Amino acid sequence: MNGADHLCDVLLAHGVDVCFANPGTSEMHFVAALDRRPQMRCILGLSEGVVTGAADGYGRMAGKPAATLLHTGPGLANGLANLHNARRARTPIVNVVGDHAAYHLHFDAPLTSDIESFARPVSHWLRRASGPDDVGPTARAACEAAVALPGVATVILPADAAWSAASTPPVEPHPPLGPVAADPGAIRAVAEAVRRAPGRVGMLLGGRAGHGEALAAAGRIARRHGIRLFGEVLIGRMERGRGHPPVTRIPYPIDLALAALADLDVLVLVDAPPPVAFFAYPGKPSRLTPGTCALLTLARPGEDAASALQGLADILGTGPAAGDGPAPAEAGTPGGALSEDAVAVILAQAMPEQAVICDEALTSARRFYALTQGAAPHDYLMNTGGAIGIGIPLACGAAVACPGRKTIALQADGSGLYTLQGLWTQAREALDVVTIVFANRAYAILQGEMRAVGVTRFGRNAERMLTLDEPALDWVALARGFGVEAARASTCEAFRDVLGAALKRPGPFLIEAVL
Amino acid sequence: MNGADHLCDVLLAHGVDVCFANPGTSEMHFVAALDRRPQMRCILGLSEGVVTGAADGYGRMAGKPAATLLHTGPGLANGLANLHNARRARTPIVNVVGDHAAYHLHFDAPLTSDIESFARPVSHWLRRASGPDDVGPTARAACEAAVALPGVATVILPADAAWSAASTPPVEPHPPLGPVAADPGAIRAVAEAVRRAPGRVGMLLGGRAGHGEALAAAGRIARRHGIRLFGEVLIGRMERGRGHPPVTRIPYPIDLALAALADLDVLVLVDAPPPVAFFAYPGKPSRLTPGTCALLTLARPGEDAASALQGLADILGTGPAAGDGPAPAEAGTPGGALSEDAVAVILAQAMPEQAVICDEALTSARRFYALTQGAAPHDYLMNTGGAIGIGIPLACGAAVACPGRKTIALQADGSGLYTLQGLWTQAREALDVVTIVFANRAYAILQGEMRAVGVTRFGRNAERMLTLDEPALDWVALARGFGVEAARASTCEAFRDVLGAALKRPGPFLIEAVL
Repeated sequence: MNGADHLCDVLLAHGVDVCFANPGTSEMHFVAALDRRPQMRCILGLSEGVVTGAADGYGRMAGKPAATLLHTGPGLANGLANLHNARRARTPIVNVVGDHAAYHLHFDAPLTSDIESFARPVSHWLRRASGPDDVGPTARAACEAAVALPGVATVILPADAAWSAASTPPVEPHPPLGPVAADPGAIRAVAEAVRRAPGRVGMLLGGRAGHGEALAAAGRIARRHGIRLFGEVLIGRMERGRGHPPVTRIPYPIDLALAALADLDVLVLVDAPPPVAFFAYPGKPSRLTPGTCALLTLARPGEDAASALQGLADILGTGPAAGDGPAPAEAGTPGGALSEDAVAVILAQAMPEQAVICDEALTSARRFYALTQGAAPHDYLMNTGGAIGIGIPLACGAAVACPGRKTIALQADGSGLYTLQGLWTQAREALDVVTIVFANRAYAILQGEMRAVGVTRFGRNAERMLTLDEPALDWVALARGFGVEAARASTCEAFRDVLGAALKRPGPFLIEAVL
Repeated sequence: MNGADHLCDVLLAHGVDVCFANPGTSEMHFVAALDRRPQMRCILGLSEGVVTGAADGYGRMAGKPAATLLHTGPGLANGLANLHNARRARTPIVNVVGDHAAYHLHFDAPLTSDIESFARPVSHWLRRASGPDDVGPTARAACEAAVALPGVATVILPADAAWSAASTPPVEPHPPLGPVAADPGAIRAVAEAVRRAPGRVGMLLGGRAGHGEALAAAGRIARRHGIRLFGEVLIGRMERGRGHPPVTRIPYPIDLALAALADLDVLVLVDAPPPVAFFAYPGKPSRLTPGTCALLTLARPGEDAASALQGLADILGTGPAAGDGPAPAEAGTPGGALSEDAVAVILAQAMPEQAVICDEALTSARRFYALTQGAAPHDYLMNTGGAIGIGIPLACGAAVACPGRKTIALQADGSGLYTLQGLWTQAREALDVVTIVFANRAYAILQGEMRAVGVTRFGRNAERMLTLDEPALDWVALARGFGVEAARASTCEAFRDVLGAALKRPGPFLIEAVL
């Protein structure tokens, strides 16, 4: 048993049985150890952004961590942007980064880098295994930290710690820590505030408060007491559609966000930080709630949001579950040239029960969220950290976590180009993912931001940095190059047909929605 | 004049007139300022690995920095791997990273991250502009540092420093610093050592010693005194072919590297660190030179290698320039099924004068280096830091720096998949790049490393992590998806034909060499 064997066994003993990987030479002994354990499912990503984004999608939907396998500092570096997103989603991940043998580091070989410096900003927890006997304990602590926080626990695995024989017996797994109970005093304070400000209380549901029993309890309390439910600007995971309470997403544009929260006296935070502006803008506030609005925390990240909400319900009493929103069919039957809104309407009408929606459509799917309150029940996941390029990988990981459900990626074209390599993983693993690319051939969100800073006529440099035409990307060719079947639609009728066919067949499919 | 205007003007005043970019909201005022200066050439990359890799290729060939434009921590993160390579190549780059407005940082908005922690491991120099009046001085110091080191100078540009009016006059550029003179004592010591150990002296030429007058001087000294010339395991830039002295590249495989340097008494380092093993292997040394070999530094990075070599020549005397190596035609005319070696032979025979070769073929182009000693004169660039995924971006940057020359990328398929988005930049900018993809459909280098650790039969997990088949990548479809014309060749005859045609036409072309 070398260190790498210990690592694999500890992962498996903690229920971590999926490893998203892109290995290199310093991880060969880890690869060999994984190869001796076929009960671990190893999934290759063609670049590390795919690896870490998939681990995020898996962790959000499975409710337990996947492992990653990244190659030294540069391999980690390529995966940092999606780890940044995972950190913001507070997704449990055991992030394993190989490094040179300890004694080789001071030679400063070409691949040597300061892995801790790269890793720290995205890690809730970080530890370097000091030798083969420390690999098991480090792995166990990482598994426990990833689940308890929850968050990104990074293990740095030196090659000699992996390849050397360990003298210790295999580490006995402890049962993983669950969330700790929220402060009863905080629950009472929230109850008191709700009673004092009827009709002027909002509740922001983040993290684990967006689904399952926590969401249901929040819905019943809200219905009884006239509390408005909000989701974060960027939602990690929310159960939505028929049977789920209506939750208003705080809008991304700063003026709309300020307006949405303008008349609150109290905002109750449930597994969510105080809402702030995504960017600063000259002359606009950074905090989204009015200065007169009290912020009260019911449950912090890592605390048990569901039981805190149940405790609140016990004090305040609850109403019935919310009625369903309007069925998407009421939005009519779009026809003619395809538009962003038409895609949203047609998809809301066509999507199957229990779909997993991975939304990185940015400017393009704005109407989808509102339309789907009365649609088929589904899970809804967004890019949580603003690091673009998570949509396709996120869908990979969600589909691995949820066999038997259809995963649907709503993908802006500019963002999708960051990590389109994930399409190959969908093909290789035969994942049930339908990707809809909103091909507007521009960084449309940035064109809006340029206009917001007062530039209405773009010169050549701005034009060249904010558009994706000349040449236009051919997403059908790109998808096929990665082994994913694909079709293009530029009318509502064609889109409806190809979407229906894609949803009926198993395996991945990509639709280029030409706008 | 706001801070962003100052930044642009200082860059232009220092001759930095190419900006590789992928902007975001926090850089909109910088984009607007660039838009007011059409003399700056802004080139969009579809992901930041393309941006930074292109800046590396540009800097190596232009001998002066390009600027980058990256969006906050995650945008920088995506570009770190190729900045790591640039750091190892000691390429001058002014690396500009936007950030939130200073007053917005403590709200910890979703995109907030510790940019300094990400940037420090890849930066030779790093500074955050403290406000609009500090942007100009920071930019000037960055331009000077990038050139003088040379290396990666990172400027962090808060959005409010960019958008606020600066009260200072435009900064007057100082003439950029050139390399400083090497230590005369070091030159005398090297001369002495060469005289004492005739026939047992090697000279390792890195950085700026691999081309121009430095290389020519090294060649004449070597010819007279029987000195063996070596290039680093990973070569940043070397002039090669007819008329240039023969330089042995230190082999990548550890045993071959040890053998190549085994009988040296002295190794003279010219703008190069001591040669070390790329990875540690159980039971093998980390330092590649024997314990009995003295390491003498003639010129450090940042010192003037050319004048140091001229000083050495003045002491020791020189011989004639080296004779040319065998013409590639002597390697015969390969036929039948295409092989890695056949690609190397055919390319060595076909490549035009003054081609720029960007070699990230890893295991696939081993024979190319040896074959091209007597080929048409060319520049030869490699992945210098071992962070894969630089080949396609490096070719972009080299082609921007060298209009009128043909850039040829030798690209391993696994590495090429990291940053294939760079093909679109080639199409958009009509860059004269021929990319040859060695499609062996595997991480062949890692399969070799697995065998080296004693695993001869791969199980399912190893197989799934070390191969790129199921499904095979279709590089012709991928290239066309990005707007680059492409063709596939699986015989020597077909490859010769398509290569000949590709070299004759302007603009980008990709050849999938099926092996």
